[in-house]
Amino acid sequence: MDNKALRELLEQMLESPDKHQLRAVMENRHIADFADALDGFSAPQAARLLDLLTLHDHAEAFSFLTEERQAEIATAMSRNDLAALFSQMESDERADLYNKLTDEQRQAVLPGLAQAERDDVRRLASYPEQTAGALMTSDYATLKAHWTVHKALLRLRLEAPDKETIYQMYVIDKFRTLLGTLSLKQLILASPDTKIADLMLTDVVSVNVADDQEDVIETIRHYDLLAIPVLDDEQQLVGIITYDDAMDAAVEEATEDAQKSGSVATLNSSFKDISLGRLYSKRIGWLLLLVFGALFSGAGIAYFEDIIARNVALVFFLPLLVGSGGNAGSQASALMVRAMATGEVQMKDWFSLLGREVMVAAALGFTLALAVSGLGWMRGGPDVAIVVASAMVCVVLAGSLIGFGLPFILSRFNMDPAAASGPLVTTIVDATGVLIYLGFASVMLGL
Amino acid sequence: MDNKALRELLEQMLESPDKHQLRAVMENRHIADFADALDGFSAPQAARLLDLLTLHDHAEAFSFLTEERQAEIATAMSRNDLAALFSQMESDERADLYNKLTDEQRQAVLPGLAQAERDDVRRLASYPEQTAGALMTSDYATLKAHWTVHKALLRLRLEAPDKETIYQMYVIDKFRTLLGTLSLKQLILASPDTKIADLMLTDVVSVNVADDQEDVIETIRHYDLLAIPVLDDEQQLVGIITYDDAMDAAVEEATEDAQKSGSVATLNSSFKDISLGRLYSKRIGWLLLLVFGALFSGAGIAYFEDIIARNVALVFFLPLLVGSGGNAGSQASALMVRAMATGEVQMKDWFSLLGREVMVAAALGFTLALAVSGLGWMRGGPDVAIVVASAMVCVVLAGSLIGFGLPFILSRFNMDPAAASGPLVTTIVDATGVLIYLGFASVMLGL
Repeated sequence: MDNKALRELLEQMLESPDKHQLRAVMENRHIADFADALDGFSAPQAARLLDLLTLHDHAEAFSFLTEERQAEIATAMSRNDLAALFSQMESDERADLYNKLTDEQRQAVLPGLAQAERDDVRRLASYPEQTAGALMTSDYATLKAHWTVHKALLRLRLEAPDKETIYQMYVIDKFRTLLGTLSLKQLILASPDTKIADLMLTDVVSVNVADDQEDVIETIRHYDLLAIPVLDDEQQLVGIITYDDAMDAAVEEATEDAQKSGSVATLNSSFKDISLGRLYSKRIGWLLLLVFGALFSGAGIAYFEDIIARNVALVFFLPLLVGSGGNAGSQASALMVRAMATGEVQMKDWFSLLGREVMVAAALGFTLALAVSGLGWMRGGPDVAIVVASAMVCVVLAGSLIGFGLPFILSRFNMDPAAASGPLVTTIVDATGVLIYLGFASVMLGL
Repeated sequence: MDNKALRELLEQMLESPDKHQLRAVMENRHIADFADALDGFSAPQAARLLDLLTLHDHAEAFSFLTEERQAEIATAMSRNDLAALFSQMESDERADLYNKLTDEQRQAVLPGLAQAERDDVRRLASYPEQTAGALMTSDYATLKAHWTVHKALLRLRLEAPDKETIYQMYVIDKFRTLLGTLSLKQLILASPDTKIADLMLTDVVSVNVADDQEDVIETIRHYDLLAIPVLDDEQQLVGIITYDDAMDAAVEEATEDAQKSGSVATLNSSFKDISLGRLYSKRIGWLLLLVFGALFSGAGIAYFEDIIARNVALVFFLPLLVGSGGNAGSQASALMVRAMATGEVQMKDWFSLLGREVMVAAALGFTLALAVSGLGWMRGGPDVAIVVASAMVCVVLAGSLIGFGLPFILSRFNMDPAAASGPLVTTIVDATGVLIYLGFASVMLGL
């Protein structure tokens, strides 16, 4: 059954619900396809369709929806259904959904949970977004150091259905201090009476609950981990982050950075579904800021108005020169911002990279100068050619250094280097380029 | 022992090698830290240090190095050592390294491998980069449908040490046709005499060996898979791709797109380590292309030279207007390129999104027009204010539509939409903006 057929089945299910037929179909399909097929149904319809699944599948399908969609559908569900769903969801996703519910909905779902679950929801929901705490789950498997492999496997079989992963296990003492980790592979390969203490790895890669999610992603990726333990300041285990959540977070970070590179404020929602008004508000801020930034270029031109009036041919080269500076600057900032986002480049590298950037920018500037000097000669003679060529070298050099330096400066002041977007760099370089070019012209042509 | 201490230990190991001490230290450390600590050592030094590890750890540590670094160190190794390492590496990484070796090195390592391994290397190395085939490994665990759970677990214990993952298993028939998948979790929870055929999931999410790696990443992420099976055109299982390789590929793709967004050709190597010459060559191409693109802006200005000469005050507003158009275009292209890269937006969405873009762009244009019209009045009276305001609306609209449409057009011609970079959009919008603004001025001011 392909996705279109599944959708048609769902439409038919709205008319004449048949939970047995639907469950039989879903037995052999990935539940993510069900979630996809819900696209386009209204929230009450989606709630009715989800209700036809087993509670386990219901929670699973729900987990593949966006958070906005989850909250929308939750509103269309009865208090009892929502409470039942809530107790079945994975702890990290439950906490994320909890943060999106209204106070009234929260009051409806909490009484349906056991005290320990209630505490868990409140605790997980309390961590700030984009931190390790907000990404982590509390559904992980723990072992005791004095257990044997045999006992560990027995316990794991009992607990497995409720855990997000059982492939990575955590050995803790009675204070929840993390003593070591163990993979299911190790457990399966070991002889049954080996002690966990003799098998576990004690030098554990972990993150702190307050760490930024970028660091979490980078650590998981660097060490090829399936999951990473999250510790509080007392080194106690408070949760784990699984690779799939880290991967989602990585894609989200890359999306944010891509949007920032175009001077768009973080959308925080799907691009396809965002409303007109919100898309406007995410774009207008930077545009207004940049248009006032462009005033400096205008002011530069106004300052040299007499020179332009006396030699209007100069204006011909203005877009070439300031454009090239802006382009070289955009290149430099795109390279730096990305290298800083992946952790490849850090603040301490700035000086060693500066030398390289100067040399590359000079080479780029000379090449471009050569390319346009002929044109300068044709349109204005040797004098103009020299002005245009030397301005080009300086503008490209200035542009590159602005694009190279801005991410570092922002980072130095604890701002996201990704805010050094192409348009911001271009606007700053434009003003600089106008001054350099017309300054050169006024001095060298004696205008 | 922290990373600095590990580095000092390695320095000491070069003076007086002690493999027992080193192996004891590494027993409790993640091998990735060893790979990190090799940074800064010369290739022959790194080869000597790696040689102190067990062969297994040697291969593991090697896998955490970049491919360039691997090839460099391989050159410093003896033929025998390289052959031994080669037989121990994971099949996907071995094939990647093979592709980086010289012919002479290839001749050196192949005879050290069993015939089956040799075929495997040649086969995996033959797939084009950025396809599923190039990402996949052949170290996966397969089961037969008629086996019992008990037998499957016994076999798995035997094979586990050589497999990249045993958490996801693949059920095949004698023609290697993929019949279903099974997770280790299912296997552990099932009773020992259950048949694999009764346990496996038969509606398997898979990719074709020729699929683009972007699709692979998106599928793994969408379904939260630990690994995805790769099939050939005959639906036979030829490999699997694990989540960690997909995650690395995702970060690589995001890096490439980020570089393209700044009009830099794909570096294909670490930004920090790239040579001056290569960095220059990755940047100069686009810069030259764009400088000639900027000639159109220059030509536009030259065409209206008389008008500018008669009203030099107009030049003041040029950077504001064309800048705003470029910025709005950069925003639109950044949003589109990213939404297309994550698969959120496809070609078929183009028409429905166009309407929204027009409305948002018009709203942005009117807001910016309002913001600058006062300035126009001040500097040139009501006439100039009207010219500037109406040009602003049109330039922002044109810029947005260019930024919005270019990724679609590139994609339509089977080019990467990410090539619709900020600088390219800006350059095209600049020329358009010059024509719109000075055109409006010439008509409306009757110049």
